[in-house]
Formats: sequence, C-alpha cells, structure tokens
Amino acid sequence: MHLFTSKFIAKPDRVTEVPGSVSTPEGFNAAGVAAGLKPSGNLDLGLLASEKPCASAAIFTTNAAAAAPVIVCRDEIDCGSIQGIVVNSGSANACTGARGIVDARTMVKSAADALGIEPGSMAVASTGVIGVPLDMDSVEAGISKAAKEISPHGGGDFAAAIQTTDRIDKEGAVEVKLAEGIVRIGACAKGAGMIAPSMATMLAFITTDAAIAPGTLKGMLGAAASGTFNSVSVDGDMSTNDCVYMMANGVSGISIEPKSVELDLFTEALTAVCKGLAIKMVADGEGATKTVELTVKGAAGPEEAARVARETATSALVRTAFFGRDANWGRIMGAAGAALAGEKALAADIYYEGVCLALDGAACGEGPTDASLEAIMDQAEIAVTLDLKRGDTCRTMYFSDLTHDYVTLNAEYTT
Amino acid sequence: MHLFTSKFIAKPDRVTEVPGSVSTPEGFNAAGVAAGLKPSGNLDLGLLASEKPCASAAIFTTNAAAAAPVIVCRDEIDCGSIQGIVVNSGSANACTGARGIVDARTMVKSAADALGIEPGSMAVASTGVIGVPLDMDSVEAGISKAAKEISPHGGGDFAAAIQTTDRIDKEGAVEVKLAEGIVRIGACAKGAGMIAPSMATMLAFITTDAAIAPGTLKGMLGAAASGTFNSVSVDGDMSTNDCVYMMANGVSGISIEPKSVELDLFTEALTAVCKGLAIKMVADGEGATKTVELTVKGAAGPEEAARVARETATSALVRTAFFGRDANWGRIMGAAGAALAGEKALAADIYYEGVCLALDGAACGEGPTDASLEAIMDQAEIAVTLDLKRGDTCRTMYFSDLTHDYVTLNAEYTT
Repeated sequence: MHLFTSKFIAKPDRVTEVPGSVSTPEGFNAAGVAAGLKPSGNLDLGLLASEKPCASAAIFTTNAAAAAPVIVCRDEIDCGSIQGIVVNSGSANACTGARGIVDARTMVKSAADALGIEPGSMAVASTGVIGVPLDMDSVEAGISKAAKEISPHGGGDFAAAIQTTDRIDKEGAVEVKLAEGIVRIGACAKGAGMIAPSMATMLAFITTDAAIAPGTLKGMLGAAASGTFNSVSVDGDMSTNDCVYMMANGVSGISIEPKSVELDLFTEALTAVCKGLAIKMVADGEGATKTVELTVKGAAGPEEAARVARETATSALVRTAFFGRDANWGRIMGAAGAALAGEKALAADIYYEGVCLALDGAACGEGPTDASLEAIMDQAEIAVTLDLKRGDTCRTMYFSDLTHDYVTLNAEYTT
Repeated sequence: MHLFTSKFIAKPDRVTEVPGSVSTPEGFNAAGVAAGLKPSGNLDLGLLASEKPCASAAIFTTNAAAAAPVIVCRDEIDCGSIQGIVVNSGSANACTGARGIVDARTMVKSAADALGIEPGSMAVASTGVIGVPLDMDSVEAGISKAAKEISPHGGGDFAAAIQTTDRIDKEGAVEVKLAEGIVRIGACAKGAGMIAPSMATMLAFITTDAAIAPGTLKGMLGAAASGTFNSVSVDGDMSTNDCVYMMANGVSGISIEPKSVELDLFTEALTAVCKGLAIKMVADGEGATKTVELTVKGAAGPEEAARVARETATSALVRTAFFGRDANWGRIMGAAGAALAGEKALAADIYYEGVCLALDGAACGEGPTDASLEAIMDQAEIAVTLDLKRGDTCRTMYFSDLTHDYVTLNAEYTT
C-alpha cells in the first residue's frame, strides 16, 4: 500500500491500491527461491507466469554491451506473446560471451519445460555482477524448485528474488475501475544503482488481467515508460541488463480496445504505477537521501530539454549539494550552461519548491530567508524548476543525491 | 621541480625543469596578496604582467552560463595582445548578472591603471563560489597592494592566490634549448573540482620569453591544450569560469617562426608543461586518490573515441571501482556500451597496465592472479586500454576516482 506515497505522484481517480504484487491480477502465479547465487543466501531466482497465453510488450536497454538475456529475448523470443519469465539476481550474465548466450537459452528452455510453456513465449532476465558466468547447476536447481512453489501468493518472493542492493521493496498492485468492471495491474521492479535516463539497471515486471492486443500494449507501455522509467537517474550509468516486461492475459474478461476511453483510463493507471516504481527506484538509489523532481521549462525543443535535464540530473556537483542540504543554485546554472555549451548566454530562472532563487541568471533579489531555505532543503523530496526561457518545451526528470553511502556501496561491492 | 613526476609524461629531450613559476621567464612579474575574499585569510588576489607588450592567446569555457570575467575577456579584450592579468579566488563572479559585468570591467580598469598597462591589454579571471557578487572594496584594495608588491619573485604567491580547494601546488618552469639559445616557459594552474573535458574549473596561466606572433601562439596553445587540459576529467562538470591564458613577451630575443623546427620543439615543450599541470589537476581532483590514464583504441572516428572516453571517464560506477581498488572491468564495458547505445554489439578488449582482463567482450581466459591484480590496483597511477575494435581512432583521457572526500568537500563546501 505504498505505490503513491511520493508527493510527486497524483493517484488517478479510478485507481485503488490493493495489497499485492505481480501475481495479484487474476491468472498469474509467481515464486522466488534461494538458488545459491547470492553469497548471502537470500532469494535470487524468480519465476512469473500466466496460466493462459498472454499478449505482451517489452522494452530493452540500448547498451551496445547488452547482456546475454537481453540479446536472447530481444532477438530470439516473440515479445508480443510472452507467457512466462525467469529471472535471477546475483549475476548479470553480462560480458559473458558465447557461454552467456548458451546459459540464457538454457534458462529459457528449463523454465519453459518446468512450467509447460512454449520456449518461444518464455523470457529471461538477469541482474548482478557483470563479467562472471552463471553457476548453471544452481540456476537449474532453482528453476525446478521455483516451478514447484509457483502460486498466486508468490509475488512478494518473486519481487525479493530480483533485488540486488535495493533497500526497500518496489512492488504493488492496483484495481482500475472501468465501465465493464474491474481490471488489476500488478508490478514490481528492482533498482538501485546504474540508473540512468533511457533505461537503467532496472528490471520491471508488470502484469494485468485485462485483455489488450500486443500492438496496443506496446504503445501503452512505451508511453507509460517515457515519463517514468526513462526519466529517472541515480548515477547516470546505463545498464547492460535493463528491461521492462508487461504481460496481459485477459482473464478478467475485460478488453481494452484501441482509441477507447478505457484505453486512456488504463494508460493513466499504468503510468501512475510505473511512476510509483520509478520514484521508488530514485528514492532507493544507492545511498540516496533525497529525491529531486527537476522540471526543465522553456527549452527550445525536446532534445534540448532532455539534454539540459540529463546534464543537471547527473552532475556530481549538483547532486552532492542536495546531499549537503545546500541550495547551491549556481551549480544547476553551471550544469545547464554546460549542456548548452556554445549557445547564447543563459539567463535562466531557478525555483526550489516554488521559491525563486535565481532570476535572469543571477541571484533573485533578496531571496528567501535562510530559515525558509533550510526548511526546503531538509525535505526528502524537493521540486526544482529551471526555466531556460528559450522556448516552450518542458521535461521532468527525477534524480537522487550523491552521498557517502553511494561511494561506499560501489567502492566496496562488486556489482 | 615536479612537472614531470607522473609516469604518463615523457620529458622532452631539450627541456630542463628549473625551480620557478609564471614569473620565471624574463620580463615577467607577479604578485599574490590576501585581499580578504577568502574567509580563511589565505592569498586570494593575483597580478601577473609583462614589462613589455606581449603576443597572447586565450581559450575560454564554452559554458552558456559563462562567468562575467570570461564574457568581458572574450568579448571586450584583444586576446592577441594581453600584457597583464588580474585574478581573484573566493568568488567566481559567475551568475552575477549586470553587476558582475561591471565588476569585471572595474577589475580590468583598476589593474591596468595600477600597472600602467592599456585596459584593452589587461585580462581578468575569477574562481570560487558561483552566484555571489564580488566584494569590490576588498578587490580594489587587493589590486593596489599587489601592484606594489609585483616582482620577478612573485610567481609562487600568484599561483597560491588563484587556488580554491587545491591541495597541491600546480606550477613550474622549464628551459627549452633551441638552436639560437634558451627560452623559458613558466606556468601555473588551479583545479580541482568541476574538471571536465573541453575545459574545467581550471585557470591556467602560461608565460614565455620567446617571441611568438599571436596567430602562431593561438594555434600552438590550441594544439597543446587538446591532449592535456581538454582531456582531463575529475567529475565531468564543465565550469562557468575556465580559461587558459598564454603570454609571449619576446624578452629572450629568440623568435619562434611558423613552420620551423623551433616551433615543433617549443610546442613539444609547451605540451609537456600543459600535460604536467593537467595531470596534477586530476591527481589533485577533489578527494582523488588515483589517476587513471584511459586510452580508447579502435574507435570508428574521433567523435566516437571522444564519446566513449568521456562516458567512461565520468562514470560514477567506474570511478568508485578505482577508489575501491576493484578491477571491475565490467563497469568499463557497460559505460562504453552506453556510449555506443544502439550500435552493434560491443566485443571490446580491456587491459589494465598491459594485462588483459577482457577479450572480445568477456572475461579473458584465466586472467591475472588476484595478487597481480591487487598490485595493479594499489598503484596511484593506472593505465587502462579499451580497444573497441571498430576502427583506427584513438583517444586518451585522464580521470580521477570518486571518493568519500569528494562527497564531503562538495556537500559541505559551497563552491
């Protein structure tokens, strides 16, 4: 019951959050087991499947060093009819060469056999350390065990099994009230480092019991991801393993048709769920203490808005200032100026939580009192607006601060 | 006597390092005083001038939020005939609007008057906190004081007066043996955060008593900067205040003519001096414990080589791994893959200090022993080669690791 706790998300009217996860929509089962891939002995292998064939859609990282499971799913699976997914954490099966491809295919085959699903409809995902081959004996044993345990109550274990350095759960379920009745959306995701715009070390799995054609689902997922999963940054690093999968099995008997009011309502609900998960990824970014919503306004076009937002959201100086609770707007101006290198002089306005700190590129008159600035900077969620005054385009991104714990986690932990 | 201590620099044969700084070449004077701009009371205002008119060249940040002194020098000064420079630290005079421009012009006028130089031949530079106007009473008093103290022995004080969070001095002088006799080059710079390719929060000042025409000087400085000042990254942030100035006063009586052997020898010496300063900036990057020389080989072209080098050198994951002494080559592969997003699958080779860690995108056979890897990662300077095997272009960059001290410095210190 926590998908919509961020002040940056408005819960749509027809959406009710319910306890649950990816196996909450009718006809979905899940499991998570400890296969021995994580030295900690924590859950590290998950299975998620629909009882019936599904329509599906998937989004993959564009990283040229894409991991074996990404290559196998992207190139060898029909992403419009995925019925089941096998996931492991502990090893990313990335930079593992030809052996990695064979291992990913073996995971698909074993999971498909264990669940009685066509191999062409079984997807695979991995997350964890790069460059280390999978221990396939453990993986195979884990798949057998998970296939025996799979049930409508396994969503929580599945969500736990896909995590690496995550500190908080990222899962939830909602009911969406449509004219014909109620459909459900379940979802879970893992963060938490290597999160960058245009995908991240992010695995996200979304299920629904609505009936949606593959083409419609693809468009809907792309639209929902653009302002959510594709608009977050923890450290600006794009992962080799990112993917978002969505499966729709139609078990509710309710259909979402193209160009219908129902499609708009459902997309709104899906976007809210994705945003809930995406903001949780930022809030749970490695070592993060703050979530910043950066709205770049007044850009000359979409590319410029995205470039300025990305440069600012990934600036180490901007991010450490938020950790230090320092309203150092000059670093934001500097980052925006770097993104606009060579362009005419920038005379932007900057607002923190609606309070003007910079006007026309310089400090804003008397500005706020130290006490009111301190109150703003003490918040866990801070809204920043950067108005470039160069055009009419707007872009919002979410990013976390850069902290000692980030350095500790990534210096001491091989991920 | 420490410009060439890095293993990444080869001292040219005809170059001899001598004790000194920017006022070591004949006919140059310098001073550094405490004007009260730094709360610490440290030196914070410097003057550097030639006794005779100079040829000069300058390179400025392309940041669209360029600081007032950058705008004034770029747009109002003849950068081919600079004879003197006034610099302050403590405040960057950036994001200070119309008042900042007036203040920068006042600094030029006051310094020119105090030294008897044409205002059109006086440059100004500032470094420090962004967004805070200069305390001009202190600046003016400092200029008067510095003008009284200026001497051939003031180079060290000048170098100290331009520093902010620098921990080590970045200055030096060399003699270059040419056919006609000896010419001298003196130089100093400040780092240490906000260092990014294509300029940084870097101020660098270079003097020589060789006679060089402005056009020749400009080409020479651009060539020397490209593989040095423009190939270093501490945190990937491009500053609002960067500039490199070089003055040649001809007092030695030795002339460097275009297309001559002397020009090649002098450029080689100048490049070595710039590289010495640039690598010191990286080594002294905020919180840095390591300097990494990253050579990207086998890129399809210069833009691709630069993009991959930059993405890798600025990756928070790559940089924290070096701090953790973790030879995590997978993060380099991931960063390179991100830089090549959407391109065909990357099958790169990675070498640390000539030892193969990855071949064709996967771990390299048995690889080195843990002990030999540990010995490599314990070094303060580590050479990494990333061979993309996509073409014939090469690019080298220098970057520092990301450490707890970086976070502390930038979270707790308003820069």
